[in-house]
Amino acid sequence: SSDSNLIRATIFPGDGIGPEIAQSVKQVFSTAGVPIEWEEHYVGTEIDPRTQSFLTWESLESVRRNKVGLKGPMATPIGKGHRSLNLTLRKELNLYANVRPCYSLPGYKTRYDNVDLITIRENTEGEYSGLEHQVVRGVVESLKIITRQASMRVAEYAFHYAKTHGRQRVSAIHKANIMQKTDGLFLKCCREVAEKYPEIVYEEVVIDNCCMMLVKNPSLFDVLVMPNLYGDIISDLCAGLIGGLGLTPSCNIGEGGIALAEAVHGSAPDIAGKNLANPTALLLSAVSMLRHLELNDKADQIQDAILKTIAEGRYRTGDLGGKSTTTEFTNAVCDHL
Amino acid sequence: SSDSNLIRATIFPGDGIGPEIAQSVKQVFSTAGVPIEWEEHYVGTEIDPRTQSFLTWESLESVRRNKVGLKGPMATPIGKGHRSLNLTLRKELNLYANVRPCYSLPGYKTRYDNVDLITIRENTEGEYSGLEHQVVRGVVESLKIITRQASMRVAEYAFHYAKTHGRQRVSAIHKANIMQKTDGLFLKCCREVAEKYPEIVYEEVVIDNCCMMLVKNPSLFDVLVMPNLYGDIISDLCAGLIGGLGLTPSCNIGEGGIALAEAVHGSAPDIAGKNLANPTALLLSAVSMLRHLELNDKADQIQDAILKTIAEGRYRTGDLGGKSTTTEFTNAVCDHL
Ligand SMILES: CC(C)[C@H](C(=O)O)[C@@H](O)C(=O)O
Ligand SMILES: CC(C)[C@H](C(=O)O)[C@@H](O)C(=O)O
Repeated sequence: SSDSNLIRATIFPGDGIGPEIAQSVKQVFSTAGVPIEWEEHYVGTEIDPRTQSFLTWESLESVRRNKVGLKGPMATPIGKGHRSLNLTLRKELNLYANVRPCYSLPGYKTRYDNVDLITIRENTEGEYSGLEHQVVRGVVESLKIITRQASMRVAEYAFHYAKTHGRQRVSAIHKANIMQKTDGLFLKCCREVAEKYPEIVYEEVVIDNCCMMLVKNPSLFDVLVMPNLYGDIISDLCAGLIGGLGLTPSCNIGEGGIALAEAVHGSAPDIAGKNLANPTALLLSAVSMLRHLELNDKADQIQDAILKTIAEGRYRTGDLGGKSTTTEFTNAVCDHL
Repeated sequence: SSDSNLIRATIFPGDGIGPEIAQSVKQVFSTAGVPIEWEEHYVGTEIDPRTQSFLTWESLESVRRNKVGLKGPMATPIGKGHRSLNLTLRKELNLYANVRPCYSLPGYKTRYDNVDLITIRENTEGEYSGLEHQVVRGVVESLKIITRQASMRVAEYAFHYAKTHGRQRVSAIHKANIMQKTDGLFLKCCREVAEKYPEIVYEEVVIDNCCMMLVKNPSLFDVLVMPNLYGDIISDLCAGLIGGLGLTPSCNIGEGGIALAEAVHGSAPDIAGKNLANPTALLLSAVSMLRHLELNDKADQIQDAILKTIAEGRYRTGDLGGKSTTTEFTNAVCDHL
């Protein structure tokens, strides 16, 4: 049943509410006539009976071959020694930049209006090295690793993104007043790249001050680029400004042009299988996948339909204070297409 | 001129606007009849001509002897190899816990009402170890150190604080899903201490999620305790919720009962000497020093006068959108005593 006019994309529905929200994306894509053929693989907390592992070789190969994919939430397998599957995917696929656009959704009121931020997070090193040990009893250490290679590529991605998306400013977020060598190297790389983009305003902001400014006045920022942990923190803070992780898309960019879009919220086991999940974050992530494929018309069309549905406010899932089911919300989006 | 009924307290006015806001504290204390005699020392970016250092032995001895002190902002001396004076003080005086109460100021409107949070930050280790090196060209690492000793003492301080201040809940903030050993040890210590305080609700919250929850609904939290860098980040975020660092007091607790209260905002060299600085953060820090001395009546009286002045809104400094001078604001506080 393979149609050569179709683009093949991998989909990992994931755990918990994953399958339901993935279903929502499939329905919306097929209603919109998106020329994509999904290649579905299961990655999650259940062991693949054939390979006895959580993440099969085929799953990884599928993303490597298709170069685009969409992933739902994955719970971390319980028990010691299991690395988070999210991290394993980032590492195995060399997903070096995590991009999270965060903008106010018209009609969904929070304390903040007109938020429009892009956080770009280094996704492979820093505090996430996994290198930790006990020095003596009661004294443990973790290593934060910053490399020129990873810092340059994420800085380049950030400035390229800013330029190609009509953004004015890139802020590098750091704590180089304390970690002069690691964050200092990160900043050095950002500065080097900034010189090649004289049309983009470049600034450096200490992370604590950045958080204070974000909650006081998020419109002071535009594109933010930063090491791994700061990106983890700041992207969630930004999500909070507009209503939470249920509303914010995310896309991971890898070497060789790979893009793996993902919903970064949890798998919400408490509501799984009950048709209550909000598919917005996965839908908007799927839209960012379409933009990566330069299917911008389809992307615009679907994004508009999602935003209209939220703006109308007639169909809202429980997390947004409504009573709609996943299906009702999805149907409403389809009706707007 | 030493009166044996007076309590001696050290004061480091610091750099920039430091002397002006320290003057404000002195005026308010003397108007309120606080039985304190100040022992003033200069610590800041100028080298002491006698000792050729930025921080004199006498300054440190003064705090060690008096056990209470108040410090204004200190700029970091320019040039390589100078550690931040703030950090040096924390290290030399073993100031292991940094306490920052953060509450909405009646009459000063922000996006948030009824914020009432206490962040308690481990202040001596973690990402602030200062241990960094280049492994090979283009690869650098920083060490984060967590010890049982420092984690236990800050956890004990946090629960003791919660209990003695009528607080219901202590949240330990961490990223132990990634830094299992370091943040894991921190959590283990918090859990151990929590068992001794069955009347206090204890919970653990991942830092990214904590930031999202704080911007969505800060009233979900009460007392927050955490490793150094997370404390740096979250305390500034919290300050942002209520209007910024110009309004939030801070107090450092050291071994042997030392308390060094401080304004954590910068030295604002651009407005220094112009009678434009907002003395609120230093005044409220001085109030926390009085509470440490159990001079609660004086503390209440002065705090009320500050809050009333802000609530009236007639005298506000430029940072709060007003046009008053430091002197006018200070006089207004004194008028309310
Ligand atoms: C689940 C966790 C390991 C992950 C992270 O820390 O990166 C998550 O918070 C995220 O932001 O994707
Ligand atoms: C000035 C800086 C070294 C300091 C810190 O990072 O601790 C400041 O941000 C603070 O919170 O007191």
